[in-house]
Amino acid sequence: MFLWLLLIAGPEVDRLAAMAGKHKVYLVMGVIERDGYTLYCTVLFFDSQGRFLGKHRKIMPTALERIIWGFGDGSTIPVFETPIGKIGAAICWENRMPLLRTAMYAKGIEIYCAPTADSRDVWQASMTHIALEGGCFVLSANQFCRRKDYPSPPDYLFSGTEDELTPDSVVCAGGSVIISPSGAILAGPNYNGEALVSADLDLGEIARAKFDFDVVGHYSRPEVLSLIVRDHPAKPVSFTSASKKPKTLTNSVWSHFALTNSQMNKSSKAI
Amino acid sequence: MFLWLLLIAGPEVDRLAAMAGKHKVYLVMGVIERDGYTLYCTVLFFDSQGRFLGKHRKIMPTALERIIWGFGDGSTIPVFETPIGKIGAAICWENRMPLLRTAMYAKGIEIYCAPTADSRDVWQASMTHIALEGGCFVLSANQFCRRKDYPSPPDYLFSGTEDELTPDSVVCAGGSVIISPSGAILAGPNYNGEALVSADLDLGEIARAKFDFDVVGHYSRPEVLSLIVRDHPAKPVSFTSASKKPKTLTNSVWSHFALTNSQMNKSSKAI
Amino acid sequence: MFLWLLLIAGPEVDRLAAMAGKHKVYLVMGVIERDGYTLYCTVLFFDSQGRFLGKHRKIMPTALERIIWGFGDGSTIPVFETPIGKIGAAICWENRMPLLRTAMYAKGIEIYCAPTADSRDVWQASMTHIALEGGCFVLSANQFCRRKDYPSPPDYLFSGTEDELTPDSVVCAGGSVIISPSGAILAGPNYNGEALVSADLDLGEIARAKFDFDVVGHYSRPEVLSLIVRDHPAKPVSFTSASKKPKTLTNSVWSHFALTNSQMNKSSKAI
Amino acid sequence: MFLWLLLIAGPEVDRLAAMAGKHKVYLVMGVIERDGYTLYCTVLFFDSQGRFLGKHRKIMPTALERIIWGFGDGSTIPVFETPIGKIGAAICWENRMPLLRTAMYAKGIEIYCAPTADSRDVWQASMTHIALEGGCFVLSANQFCRRKDYPSPPDYLFSGTEDELTPDSVVCAGGSVIISPSGAILAGPNYNGEALVSADLDLGEIARAKFDFDVVGHYSRPEVLSLIVRDHPAKPVSFTSASKKPKTLTNSVWSHFALTNSQMNKSSKAI
Amino acid sequence: MFLWLLLIAGPEVDRLAAMAGKHKVYLVMGVIERDGYTLYCTVLFFDSQGRFLGKHRKIMPTALERIIWGFGDGSTIPVFETPIGKIGAAICWENRMPLLRTAMYAKGIEIYCAPTADSRDVWQASMTHIALEGGCFVLSANQFCRRKDYPSPPDYLFSGTEDELTPDSVVCAGGSVIISPSGAILAGPNYNGEALVSADLDLGEIARAKFDFDVVGHYSRPEVLSLIVRDHPAKPVSFTSASKKPKTLTNSVWSHFALTNSQMNKSSKAI
Amino acid sequence: MFLWLLLIAGPEVDRLAAMAGKHKVYLVMGVIERDGYTLYCTVLFFDSQGRFLGKHRKIMPTALERIIWGFGDGSTIPVFETPIGKIGAAICWENRMPLLRTAMYAKGIEIYCAPTADSRDVWQASMTHIALEGGCFVLSANQFCRRKDYPSPPDYLFSGTEDELTPDSVVCAGGSVIISPSGAILAGPNYNGEALVSADLDLGEIARAKFDFDVVGHYSRPEVLSLIVRDHPAKPVSFTSASKKPKTLTNSVWSHFALTNSQMNKSSKAI
Repeated sequence: MFLWLLLIAGPEVDRLAAMAGKHKVYLVMGVIERDGYTLYCTVLFFDSQGRFLGKHRKIMPTALERIIWGFGDGSTIPVFETPIGKIGAAICWENRMPLLRTAMYAKGIEIYCAPTADSRDVWQASMTHIALEGGCFVLSANQFCRRKDYPSPPDYLFSGTEDELTPDSVVCAGGSVIISPSGAILAGPNYNGEALVSADLDLGEIARAKFDFDVVGHYSRPEVLSLIVRDHPAKPVSFTSASKKPKTLTNSVWSHFALTNSQMNKSSKAI
Repeated sequence: MFLWLLLIAGPEVDRLAAMAGKHKVYLVMGVIERDGYTLYCTVLFFDSQGRFLGKHRKIMPTALERIIWGFGDGSTIPVFETPIGKIGAAICWENRMPLLRTAMYAKGIEIYCAPTADSRDVWQASMTHIALEGGCFVLSANQFCRRKDYPSPPDYLFSGTEDELTPDSVVCAGGSVIISPSGAILAGPNYNGEALVSADLDLGEIARAKFDFDVVGHYSRPEVLSLIVRDHPAKPVSFTSASKKPKTLTNSVWSHFALTNSQMNKSSKAI
Repeated sequence: MFLWLLLIAGPEVDRLAAMAGKHKVYLVMGVIERDGYTLYCTVLFFDSQGRFLGKHRKIMPTALERIIWGFGDGSTIPVFETPIGKIGAAICWENRMPLLRTAMYAKGIEIYCAPTADSRDVWQASMTHIALEGGCFVLSANQFCRRKDYPSPPDYLFSGTEDELTPDSVVCAGGSVIISPSGAILAGPNYNGEALVSADLDLGEIARAKFDFDVVGHYSRPEVLSLIVRDHPAKPVSFTSASKKPKTLTNSVWSHFALTNSQMNKSSKAI
Repeated sequence: MFLWLLLIAGPEVDRLAAMAGKHKVYLVMGVIERDGYTLYCTVLFFDSQGRFLGKHRKIMPTALERIIWGFGDGSTIPVFETPIGKIGAAICWENRMPLLRTAMYAKGIEIYCAPTADSRDVWQASMTHIALEGGCFVLSANQFCRRKDYPSPPDYLFSGTEDELTPDSVVCAGGSVIISPSGAILAGPNYNGEALVSADLDLGEIARAKFDFDVVGHYSRPEVLSLIVRDHPAKPVSFTSASKKPKTLTNSVWSHFALTNSQMNKSSKAI
Repeated sequence: MFLWLLLIAGPEVDRLAAMAGKHKVYLVMGVIERDGYTLYCTVLFFDSQGRFLGKHRKIMPTALERIIWGFGDGSTIPVFETPIGKIGAAICWENRMPLLRTAMYAKGIEIYCAPTADSRDVWQASMTHIALEGGCFVLSANQFCRRKDYPSPPDYLFSGTEDELTPDSVVCAGGSVIISPSGAILAGPNYNGEALVSADLDLGEIARAKFDFDVVGHYSRPEVLSLIVRDHPAKPVSFTSASKKPKTLTNSVWSHFALTNSQMNKSSKAI
Repeated sequence: MFLWLLLIAGPEVDRLAAMAGKHKVYLVMGVIERDGYTLYCTVLFFDSQGRFLGKHRKIMPTALERIIWGFGDGSTIPVFETPIGKIGAAICWENRMPLLRTAMYAKGIEIYCAPTADSRDVWQASMTHIALEGGCFVLSANQFCRRKDYPSPPDYLFSGTEDELTPDSVVCAGGSVIISPSGAILAGPNYNGEALVSADLDLGEIARAKFDFDVVGHYSRPEVLSLIVRDHPAKPVSFTSASKKPKTLTNSVWSHFALTNSQMNKSSKAI
């Protein structure tokens, strides 16, 4: 596990896509995206055929992050329909936003990815709750890193705690976990070091869970409570000639999900 | 803990109010309300001076409950401003409804009461998550009851499991719990039998939690995600002469909260 | 000049209003507003009769401020029509936002108040530019404070520079200034300590400046460049019953403008 | 420095392009363009390989200019991506138009050229402000000319001041200047006579400036304030067969920018 | 006939309306309108009941006028349907704009008012042509004024010709005229001094003229030639809350039309 | 001047071209064209080197003409760029069509030919107006003919007036005229009989006129008023194999323009 790695443009995205294709995995990966001179906390999605599917930008950075990152808008809250299920992601404390989650539930999310930097116990409670609330599988990935994974001071300082750290001190403890729609822990949480956390997912469990509680179906009350999601791009300046320019993307090894096709046994019969 | 006790009208409400006043406690209590020929799963609120504050009706009954109960509307999702804090309630799986919770967050709920009949471990995860998400204290009360608390068969049957039950078999295991806005467990969960679960609440913790995550404040994105709550009464028939008729209320000893003034040390200094 | 003073509710606003009325001045003052559990960087407006006119909330906090403050929306970008001219305000680096300024120009701002914490020379260039661009008077107030105006360490630390500071070290150098629509410096910039900066304003200068350059009139090209200002309140949750609750406001002595009626000689003849 | 030199067609543009190529400079030059029988106040762009890149037409002439010049539309507000950075231009008081500047910021302008005829001090303030606001380098060129550079009366009259002028009287005082994105003056302002003003530009400064204030990125509020730029050509008559006819261009030595490749050390590493 | 008289607000419009009502005439009158700090060359319309009908703003000022006046947009090119016919106006050289005229033809203009400051013979040719082209009555009013109607030098100078003028020199020679749809001169042109020019109009002539040539009917070729009129207001800044503020208007005695009901014999039978 | 001469095919066109070449004149001549079984009212253009330049078909025949002639489309509204200026034509009342004229103005017409059969005074007003409106020279040719120029009754009848005519009665009075862009009459109108009307044209007058009023340049408002000209051929039946068939042309001596090179002194110095 390394430092944030700021990359500038398309080549990295192409390499990630190629990796996903080579290993035949769906890859959902947190990166730092640069668009113009503003950075976004972003998740990239790749399919097992090596195609870049799209991205989610964190819509509200957390605490100090707000100094670094811009704010995503409603146009990058995707849920991708894939052969292994409908995949989307919310980043770190964004997972605490009930309206954002509801937007993804409404898009039919089945494989809910939650990259995070929060290794506290209470994070696990939220992951379990989201699985129950959304009737979906929750896959939360968190980095495991030690002091020595970062540059030595003074190049990099853990302000306030730097003096107490040895090279082997754990500075982020991991806790990656996979939870079923009924709240069962399928894998993890792993706090022991870098690891690949995996589980076979039976998508039929979603149907069984939603039979009891369908948050955007029979268990909603739309006449009383209705959420508006403004999902058009919000730009400070729009040009009526609307030329599309290619996006530049940057990434990091912040967090990642690697789902192999074999691990994802979609039992479509059950849906 | 007793059987469901179906009450029909005002006298029971008056008696409950008197009890709250006598014991100088805020009383939040689940009841079965009858209005006309329809029953509602309802929570009643009383203050420590013996006044009935109002009620919340469950807006979506769960599973088999839908056979018995009607559906509340947006006019009975109250949050009461009291000297000990802003109090509201959601009933059982209604707590899984992200839009309902958000409506209460927007009303500034500080003491979030969650009467339930769910004694599973995953319930605890949801309670912790709600405390974190809403930046509020969560007080969840669940009944503890054994087979002998119910009438003997054939008057009352636990269908499917009746044969496996002895008089002392636990049929609902409790799990009442009090959680702080930071997700810390202040009391419970209690699975040992009937009990009074209590904790001193420092409302200053709410400010400290919301500093990091204010779900309806700085951590919202209202231009992207906005919730509409239709909180006027929804009636199938409205008369233009709009006569107010007195409400009839029913109650049960299903669940309750008894908060003494002394337990609720509102430390306004900390805000 | 003191530390940030966090106030909780109406009383402070009432006292400020009374002070404005007593001294017969228009008072435009930066405060820290608390609404629920979110803080806003806010400017309050009072008239010389002791009435609270309204407020502006900073729509985008600067750098580290984003951790502390929420984000204003389009509903609190007011320009108040008063007997001494049309008054509005933008806070600190918000003054660098060309679209925000243009919104205020379109509202006819004549007395443009720019409370700031930026005492650098380049701030003065921006103030002059805004006067020219908007064809308005610009009044920028900045605090003058020394290390001793803040609590001693460790209660309060100027991180990084604390060691170099003596009690008399200037930590914010002021620079309050008043500029005419033609870019002439009428008073200040004052970097010498706490002071009252004042000037007589001849509003006729606005007409003379706009004759050459009217940014929202004859010198605009609305068919080519048009700005949309979404000035309705943006709330995460809206209740259809729309009850108005009184706002609570907090303030600080961060910055202030005191305009006496006599100083503001509105020469309406010249318009 | 000479009189306005009205040229009629392509040959002059070709010669300017050849000059840029011969001297290996990027040339940004104010000219008077004739299209049909209407004149436009125009800036031409040439690259260091001797290619004509395109033009910007002033969208709103100033004061008396409106008698002479037509009005540019949204189709000629270019920002050219070149190896030395993204180059665009606004002409004279057009630089005071906040919406026009914002359109160019949105196109990613890095080297903002501001040819002008304004030699007053307040012009310098605007240049500094634009550098800060846009997070870009600002290069403003103004002509330096004396009475003798113009024809003698009665062929040419400086109305009102003609009597006070000697042949050596300065009639436009120059003031060409180069400013960095942080507002630092890199060269000039030069008021001493004709001169070549030059500076090395480190484009990495743009990234450093935008980290704090990105006017069209993290420091924008697109959901509140959004600018529409109608950038299609606006023609009184359009023919559906849309034949492209070559443009005729005229020029003057009004103002110019000569940027050598060596002066522009693009430090892309810093971005 | 007097100097331009710049008025500031509503009272003048109210007085003009009252005058129209008192004398029972339709009043079409050129004024100088002030909106914010920009002036417009405007025509006001009043009916014989003393009501203000609306206004037309000159969409393109002429020559030196462009320094003084702003540019009208497509939203103020009205044709008012009244009991005496459909009335509209174009101001001075705007009458030379074929697309503007066509827009008014398409609105069915019957009484085409052309206030002007052009007293040359060729103006009469244009008036006749417009009557033929549009199949409408043309009423052109021009001021008659002498040097003594203006302030004495140096308060007011006719630059270039001041020395040649005596107090009785005519500086604008009038030429008000009324022309029928067949090109017949019904009254005027009057070059003799201030006068009231009047004629009885038989609207049936319009039908007879359009029988031969209906510029927007049987004599148009819409498949080949089609005019787009963008008649929504063009504003540099739009607020989504769209509050309408009352307009302030200014006027002059520049030109006027006074049509009495008796003079306007509308022979609706003939249409 | 003769009877209408209906010509069917190429030979006549060739003879006219040869005549133009022999006499070294530009020839613009009204003819009756037959295409298939439909006749068009057409103008042919020839240059002084004996080349056929192309044709204009009247897009809307007048009154009874509609019985005889078809309708031209947008593909035959040419303006030819020639050494003596840009030449185009509109036929008779087509000159009253403001959108057609504007299409030709947009093509840069400098020598506007207006063959007509209208000898009324009001025609002269339209010609003067067009010269002013378009900033171009207008050359209007009208036939002069007597009763005896036509076949005797009953072969040809002037219905209604035949009885009042003597052989010398003038049935079309001529009125050919040449007008400058400033509206000055350069030659004619001639009502005395057949004649050659000529004038020297100084094209520099166009630039002087357009300086004040450029109908498709600085005096247009393209964002408000825009004309679409569909100038592709409009055919009732199109074959995807798109074979080009040779055109057949017919002509008459209806009207003609003969411009010698010497008469057209193009003074390009003046532009």
